[in-house]
Amino acid sequence: MPGSSFGRIFSVTTFGESHGAGVGVIVDGTPAGIPLATEDVQKELDRRRPGQSAITTPRAEKDRVEILSGVFDGLTTGTPIALLICNEDKRSGDYENLKGLFRPGHADWTYDAKYGVRDWRGSGRASGRETAARVAAGAIARKVLAAHGCTVMGYTREIDGVRAAVVEPDQIERNPARCPDPAAAALMIERIERAKADGDSVGGIVEVVAAGCPPGLGDPVFDKLEALLSHAIMSVGAVRGVEIGAGFAAARMRGSTYNDEPFLEAGRMRTRTNNAGGIAGGISNGMDIVIRAVLRPPASISRPQTTIDAAGAPVTVQIEGRHDPCIVPRAVPVLEAMTALVLADCLLVHGAYRSH
Amino acid sequence: MPGSSFGRIFSVTTFGESHGAGVGVIVDGTPAGIPLATEDVQKELDRRRPGQSAITTPRAEKDRVEILSGVFDGLTTGTPIALLICNEDKRSGDYENLKGLFRPGHADWTYDAKYGVRDWRGSGRASGRETAARVAAGAIARKVLAAHGCTVMGYTREIDGVRAAVVEPDQIERNPARCPDPAAAALMIERIERAKADGDSVGGIVEVVAAGCPPGLGDPVFDKLEALLSHAIMSVGAVRGVEIGAGFAAARMRGSTYNDEPFLEAGRMRTRTNNAGGIAGGISNGMDIVIRAVLRPPASISRPQTTIDAAGAPVTVQIEGRHDPCIVPRAVPVLEAMTALVLADCLLVHGAYRSH
Amino acid sequence: MPGSSFGRIFSVTTFGESHGAGVGVIVDGTPAGIPLATEDVQKELDRRRPGQSAITTPRAEKDRVEILSGVFDGLTTGTPIALLICNEDKRSGDYENLKGLFRPGHADWTYDAKYGVRDWRGSGRASGRETAARVAAGAIARKVLAAHGCTVMGYTREIDGVRAAVVEPDQIERNPARCPDPAAAALMIERIERAKADGDSVGGIVEVVAAGCPPGLGDPVFDKLEALLSHAIMSVGAVRGVEIGAGFAAARMRGSTYNDEPFLEAGRMRTRTNNAGGIAGGISNGMDIVIRAVLRPPASISRPQTTIDAAGAPVTVQIEGRHDPCIVPRAVPVLEAMTALVLADCLLVHGAYRSH
Amino acid sequence: MPGSSFGRIFSVTTFGESHGAGVGVIVDGTPAGIPLATEDVQKELDRRRPGQSAITTPRAEKDRVEILSGVFDGLTTGTPIALLICNEDKRSGDYENLKGLFRPGHADWTYDAKYGVRDWRGSGRASGRETAARVAAGAIARKVLAAHGCTVMGYTREIDGVRAAVVEPDQIERNPARCPDPAAAALMIERIERAKADGDSVGGIVEVVAAGCPPGLGDPVFDKLEALLSHAIMSVGAVRGVEIGAGFAAARMRGSTYNDEPFLEAGRMRTRTNNAGGIAGGISNGMDIVIRAVLRPPASISRPQTTIDAAGAPVTVQIEGRHDPCIVPRAVPVLEAMTALVLADCLLVHGAYRSH
Repeated sequence: MPGSSFGRIFSVTTFGESHGAGVGVIVDGTPAGIPLATEDVQKELDRRRPGQSAITTPRAEKDRVEILSGVFDGLTTGTPIALLICNEDKRSGDYENLKGLFRPGHADWTYDAKYGVRDWRGSGRASGRETAARVAAGAIARKVLAAHGCTVMGYTREIDGVRAAVVEPDQIERNPARCPDPAAAALMIERIERAKADGDSVGGIVEVVAAGCPPGLGDPVFDKLEALLSHAIMSVGAVRGVEIGAGFAAARMRGSTYNDEPFLEAGRMRTRTNNAGGIAGGISNGMDIVIRAVLRPPASISRPQTTIDAAGAPVTVQIEGRHDPCIVPRAVPVLEAMTALVLADCLLVHGAYRSH
Repeated sequence: MPGSSFGRIFSVTTFGESHGAGVGVIVDGTPAGIPLATEDVQKELDRRRPGQSAITTPRAEKDRVEILSGVFDGLTTGTPIALLICNEDKRSGDYENLKGLFRPGHADWTYDAKYGVRDWRGSGRASGRETAARVAAGAIARKVLAAHGCTVMGYTREIDGVRAAVVEPDQIERNPARCPDPAAAALMIERIERAKADGDSVGGIVEVVAAGCPPGLGDPVFDKLEALLSHAIMSVGAVRGVEIGAGFAAARMRGSTYNDEPFLEAGRMRTRTNNAGGIAGGISNGMDIVIRAVLRPPASISRPQTTIDAAGAPVTVQIEGRHDPCIVPRAVPVLEAMTALVLADCLLVHGAYRSH
Repeated sequence: MPGSSFGRIFSVTTFGESHGAGVGVIVDGTPAGIPLATEDVQKELDRRRPGQSAITTPRAEKDRVEILSGVFDGLTTGTPIALLICNEDKRSGDYENLKGLFRPGHADWTYDAKYGVRDWRGSGRASGRETAARVAAGAIARKVLAAHGCTVMGYTREIDGVRAAVVEPDQIERNPARCPDPAAAALMIERIERAKADGDSVGGIVEVVAAGCPPGLGDPVFDKLEALLSHAIMSVGAVRGVEIGAGFAAARMRGSTYNDEPFLEAGRMRTRTNNAGGIAGGISNGMDIVIRAVLRPPASISRPQTTIDAAGAPVTVQIEGRHDPCIVPRAVPVLEAMTALVLADCLLVHGAYRSH
Repeated sequence: MPGSSFGRIFSVTTFGESHGAGVGVIVDGTPAGIPLATEDVQKELDRRRPGQSAITTPRAEKDRVEILSGVFDGLTTGTPIALLICNEDKRSGDYENLKGLFRPGHADWTYDAKYGVRDWRGSGRASGRETAARVAAGAIARKVLAAHGCTVMGYTREIDGVRAAVVEPDQIERNPARCPDPAAAALMIERIERAKADGDSVGGIVEVVAAGCPPGLGDPVFDKLEALLSHAIMSVGAVRGVEIGAGFAAARMRGSTYNDEPFLEAGRMRTRTNNAGGIAGGISNGMDIVIRAVLRPPASISRPQTTIDAAGAPVTVQIEGRHDPCIVPRAVPVLEAMTALVLADCLLVHGAYRSH
């Protein structure tokens, strides 16, 4: 597979460019008989959609999704589900002046080097817009997970150095920063607005927690659950690092502290701490699965930058367009979707062996 | 594929348990005509082998590799290369007293939950011994890379909070810590020995640098180079986090700083900084590919720990056996191997399209 | 992958049902820089389209294709190409009376048994309509092959016992039977019309010849070229058998006759006969690749048949709808497409190793 | 995957050459907890083994198999099972005089064309010896199937024009032709001996029947059960055609005859005929799955043949070595194994969705 498919038996294949006809996805391997309505997908897309608040890009995409196949009388049929999201607010003209040069921090140069041909309108295939297809597919994965009592929740943990001190889940969707700590959220928004005013951008960290997953998910040795999750999460454009449970902090812990102590609670194995992030030996252990990803500051900034053009000559570029000064809040539903895709796939693979 | 295979057209499939007949790997997809001798593989295995120094496990495995197929008259034939490493120093008796309980921080419980059956001798399939097969396969990947001028080098960047301040490549293999900074190396060894004396263990960070890779490797959108690398690296048992280029530090950077400025040097695109770690838009850009992984402190420690047995009753466990108080130095060749496997696969996939 | 994807690095994923919104395909892995226009795809679809002649179903689908992604300024960009064909002439009402019973020879019962849920309108996903997506994808595969000088041509070899005695390539598209022997074609059409008048259907044999393929295609041992071709061809609904070169006739040949004698012609290896059908040891040898497939008589016939309903009670069914009394002529472009898909994939995989 | 792996979640990867260290296979994806002993595998290998009778090659390989991993205390553990069969009776010297030329009907030329390098000893990787690994893996697949009440039985249906008129299952293993019709068996053996005396070889047809398979196996549209079976069967060296149920005879049947009439028997759907060969719409329907394959006469014959050498010059070749004048009887366990591998894989994939 040359890159646009993901998943083993619950698999997704996406297509589409930022300024083409639209983006979409074929979700193959969904079990039959799951109730699925357009709204189930739409509500997740609405969380990722641009133009939600003052701190996101003003590009006005409604992101209306259409289910083209795989659902009959409101139920999945077990056949591939195709989802299409047409592009509407395309202003390709914004990019005319950028087509002959390589924007710093962007994929312009590498796409040119790899393919020779490049759709320069709004980053083409390399655009964050492609993640709409992932979020749409993730909505179906969530339905698969829900049937097993699993949920996936993400939130902003840190933006520009401001870190959430508490996690109040009901606060997450109440502020444009998607931060579970309202006080930190206010500070984060201030920082984003300041960066925007400076013609600059900021990064941050998202945490995703999957609760209710049964033990047994993940397939050693190469498809350990954390390996599949890392693959999925790192395939999202702006992500530059990923960690599970204690993550990088484990570098400075001793084994006696890091090892989570098992105990029995109501007949189930639990651990007193969760440094393992819900995964031991590559297999889920029934505790919350905890994964964090760092998102770099967006590459598109309006302050002047030095770069080169296709001929290699140095040029100064000033990117106008409509961009997010911080992608972290909009990345939350995307990273949730990627987590859900992996877990749904693992759940089905696990079922294959359990069914024996 | 249920978990023991990795790679798309340069692919490896491993087998084997810690205390079974041996571990091994089938490497399929190696181009024909590459000179390959047993020594090419053996020299990499010798770097991973236990018992190299006072700070590693005293288990005395010679790790002699045998090439069973795929090589004729000293050249690869394009057919699968099977490599077998027989286990020698097996003391299964060491584990008799552990078979009925779940060691904290180990995969005992999750393997039991997933499979119902478990080879409890030395962690079975979950043992770090499985990585010998990866290192052997990696030696072949290195040969593929070498033919394109690519090299992969890893080293210890941090152990128990002690960080290498300088990178002197020729120092790496000269100290048992595999640290490119001799002064830091001495401190690291001290820390490891102290942890060992305490019946405890310590973690750290490895950095891997791939130099000389051509632009164009990696296949958006799901098989971005960093996604494949993360999958590979995170599939190594003790790894709990992975980052590319600036990595988690990007959370606190602004776009104007993070964006690497391109310039032309001797007809090639270069960037003045390398925050991207050699990858833009999921595709290698010709700069050094830089990846870091955190390794947790090993789970096997000799000080007493509380856990539960198969019946759920609390028990105290004291792990004797022969274990590494710090896995970081021995992980270096493993993480190099995983990096090499991904790059060789990407190089061949890239070749498929370039050949058109 | 749960069934709607095919191909290793040139891969297709289809979706769609007979009476849903439409059918379509994502083609991933097309090399960049290949000129591709809607007409390239449309002209192949027009060959498969219903309603072409008196001997095909009168369902009036225009089968207009739309390219949604992956092409920019008339060239492929290396990113996934999504093709959409909307359904137009849907008369779901025709199927209302069939929804509670299992038509003989159809997939009604097995879809119900497998999925529990079934889109009963016009066979849903099991409809031959799904092959429109394959033909569309095949048009792109042909472009990839053309760049290497390979062509794929199919024709009707036999219908209802009438066999083509000569192969005049320029005659194939000149008669509705797609038979390269005009005299046989007239007889075939007569037989089809007679079956139709009888409320019955007839089967036949298609031969596909791929010319100009380089030696080296196919990947032993499981992905031998004939194995991939058989997989592809047998995945087309009505196909019940497939053979390469001498095929089933080899059962009654001796080795001294079967073995093709090699000789050198203009510096290239040729064989005096082609019993091997262009493939030796699973690898193309540069001779014409010759594959034949048998197509069963279509299951939908208007004469009364006995079957059971969902409760298991015997019922008599008379299928009205709009159906093909013989699918062979319309299967020709479908089997060509499947052949092209396999060859394009093999060509790219081969390139991966040759590029080394 | 570059060709030596087969299967989606029950997958096998083989290695080995005719005259190398040995052949073997890694079977990944076997459910845990299945009793498995070396004898289970050995007894299938013994059926394929050379030297069983006067009509097979006198090469004396004991084909002793060793289980290297994946089994603990007599039970599968869910981890990969590696099986190794060392080569013993290697007389590479027999091939010295053949290394510089291309034997007619063999893969010598194509391997050379594809790989540039070739292990010329006994056909190397292209040798039928590779199928020992398949038979070994098939023995494990049979165990998976047995747990679901499925059995796979093959037999010789035709050799050199002599066809079995009756199928008496208990006769199959009682004659060296593996023919279920003792009278036909005697004739077949006579024909084989005559061909051998003539320095020639003969072909034939094998039929494989899988009984007891549940409805629901196979994954439309590309992984239809007959498509996967055809892939598997056609990947066996000497196979040149494959057909399901009525197969090629369907070309001359009318729909009213071909359509199998469904009826209810003891609460299960059955059909009065089985032209579909147990598969409708790509999915098993609970009837016997019936597949036939044609095997060409072996390429190695002792009578003189004309061919070319590596320089393209015409030469006469006389193949000595130790060869089978008819491969049909020894192919029976190989084709059973391939059928079992596909069915086990489909059963597990099916379980993934049923478990939901």
